[in-house]
Amino acid sequence: MTSRRRISILGSTGSIGRSALSVVDAHPDRLEVVGLAAGSNAGLLAAQIAHVRPRVAAMATPHALETVRAHLPAGARPRLVSGPEGLVEVATHPDADILLCASSGTAALEAALAAIDAGKTIALANKEVLVMAGALVTAAARRRGVSILPVDSEHNAIHQCLHGRDPADIVRLILTASGGPFRDHSLAELKRVGPEDALRHPTWRMGRKITIDSATLMNKGLEVIEARWLFGAGSGQIDVVVHPQSVVHSMVELRDGSILAQLGITDMRLPIQYAFSYPERWASPLPRLDLTRCGPLDFGLPDHKRFPCLGLAYRALDGDSSLPVVLNAANEVAVAAFLEGGLSFLSIAGVIERAMDANRAGNVTSLADVRGVDRWAREFAQNLVGLQSK
Amino acid sequence: MTSRRRISILGSTGSIGRSALSVVDAHPDRLEVVGLAAGSNAGLLAAQIAHVRPRVAAMATPHALETVRAHLPAGARPRLVSGPEGLVEVATHPDADILLCASSGTAALEAALAAIDAGKTIALANKEVLVMAGALVTAAARRRGVSILPVDSEHNAIHQCLHGRDPADIVRLILTASGGPFRDHSLAELKRVGPEDALRHPTWRMGRKITIDSATLMNKGLEVIEARWLFGAGSGQIDVVVHPQSVVHSMVELRDGSILAQLGITDMRLPIQYAFSYPERWASPLPRLDLTRCGPLDFGLPDHKRFPCLGLAYRALDGDSSLPVVLNAANEVAVAAFLEGGLSFLSIAGVIERAMDANRAGNVTSLADVRGVDRWAREFAQNLVGLQSK
Repeated sequence: MTSRRRISILGSTGSIGRSALSVVDAHPDRLEVVGLAAGSNAGLLAAQIAHVRPRVAAMATPHALETVRAHLPAGARPRLVSGPEGLVEVATHPDADILLCASSGTAALEAALAAIDAGKTIALANKEVLVMAGALVTAAARRRGVSILPVDSEHNAIHQCLHGRDPADIVRLILTASGGPFRDHSLAELKRVGPEDALRHPTWRMGRKITIDSATLMNKGLEVIEARWLFGAGSGQIDVVVHPQSVVHSMVELRDGSILAQLGITDMRLPIQYAFSYPERWASPLPRLDLTRCGPLDFGLPDHKRFPCLGLAYRALDGDSSLPVVLNAANEVAVAAFLEGGLSFLSIAGVIERAMDANRAGNVTSLADVRGVDRWAREFAQNLVGLQSK
Repeated sequence: MTSRRRISILGSTGSIGRSALSVVDAHPDRLEVVGLAAGSNAGLLAAQIAHVRPRVAAMATPHALETVRAHLPAGARPRLVSGPEGLVEVATHPDADILLCASSGTAALEAALAAIDAGKTIALANKEVLVMAGALVTAAARRRGVSILPVDSEHNAIHQCLHGRDPADIVRLILTASGGPFRDHSLAELKRVGPEDALRHPTWRMGRKITIDSATLMNKGLEVIEARWLFGAGSGQIDVVVHPQSVVHSMVELRDGSILAQLGITDMRLPIQYAFSYPERWASPLPRLDLTRCGPLDFGLPDHKRFPCLGLAYRALDGDSSLPVVLNAANEVAVAAFLEGGLSFLSIAGVIERAMDANRAGNVTSLADVRGVDRWAREFAQNLVGLQSK
């Protein structure tokens, strides 16, 4: 028997984190959890600790940590930590081989960089890490000889297609997009949609923030930026096609015009398992994709008029490296305002665009730069949102 | 500049042969033709000789060769040969690196085996080579360390998907089938179809015999048998899905349930170029596939009731190694009779099945065995066809 791969998970109580623990459950002889970190769901973290018995566990605040402590079963005595240092401690635990970075938002960025410095393989499900600090993170990974394995189904599909290929043969990456719940809405209809409409995603079950991003196509925009860093492609080499069925997870075009695609069921446990098993491939207990029962597969061009967020992401990718930070921060603020009913769906892109227009930061060359730009953009967007909701 | 790859082509005046010469034209710095062989189209062969100036050229008969000689331009003086020995001479020319085996029917089998013994890389477009003598041919290739690169778009797609993968990770090969021109015909309608109906293939432009095979799905059946030999898969690991648009050329399923697919325009120059360039990949002057202009892609199960030839091929694959020889020979006779108006469309499968039922040959272990079974099956089928057309 080969030794088990040891995993730390940031964001273990979220959608990706729970799927990851299900993958670990399916491969007890191959995988083992050494660290768990969650934000605020103390009850679930306590249950996860009881189940997988990690060596260390973290919550965002000391208060939440106390709730976890109160719920621990007899015999489970992990080291309990909290705050940003706690997150870093889980991410860099000496026993961990792989860090699954699945906490949403920007909190995980510092922890991911620390894990890279500690030589951990990164299974990346957090978009902000590469969107905010793609140059810094990929440079650190190169320096340390660390692999970043994408967990997002699209990038994971591209990784699968690229495996074993000569990078010089790749001319185009084609990200598929479900198109979100408003794919066929007119502009007039888009004016009237509310959070509850957006939260009904047609093919993937995900968290609230990412579901809104999927409805605006910003999710795809962030993925375009990630693809640039993960695969070293230029913005002109990254296309998006709308594929409502989400059966083809993404594609690559080779220099002779041949296209390679990865297809599968829409279940995040598959890309997570791929990232954990790579370069091996393990059997999975999940159902197989039956193409003859999928119905027809459609592919269309994204409509930049109705979904301007995608174009904003391309613009951010082609500009100064502070622009993706602004894009991401302003988007988070705008989406939060939309979810709270303080901003219309169509205004999300407007807030982001105005923040990008106002940005004067140039290139970011350090984590401090990134944090500064992020802070500025959040404040700027928050002001805009405040004005609009009045 | 690297040295050019030198090609001999069996079947240069056929559809695949002409496409191959167009590929050579597109890559004058990388490819060079040293040998050409054709059946009866002397005028076109003479023109091809004038264009590519091969060292050797062959026709089926000395008579046809004289016509070629009469049409040669001044200065073109290839060695001219004919008959089976001529075919072998083209196939084994000492200057050839790669043999494109694209002559239809069984004539190319001996030449292909001779080329393998001479250490040539085989670009294989002739189905009969592997259907009739898969065990012999692949054993010879293994012994000699020779690669067999499939040119058929389906097997070529699978080859592309498999490249760089661990063979142990492959659990299923999925061949796509256009379904042919009668995909949606009822049994009653199939009773009435004639050769002119069958010769209108929806997506690929091909020769007459293979177009009928595409209408009966025997073409796909032969490909299932080829896939068994090309990729070492068992019949239970090879599936066929009907995909009328022929955009996805074929797929492989990996052990975790992930499916890798190769997509492209329907132009044989792409798989031919892949076989010539492998393991490199070269740019192509052909148009790119634009998935957003393909219309929806459908995938369905083949109907074995209306298209029994596919089931017969699976049966042949699972039985004695003489059975695929019988299947192929009886099919050739039946298709020829159908094309001449002497057999109904639905009777093609019946002729093949009765020949398979009557076969007593067991396993074939030599080229002589193969020839013997082939001769018997042709006679048997010819008798049946004669009886039915009376």
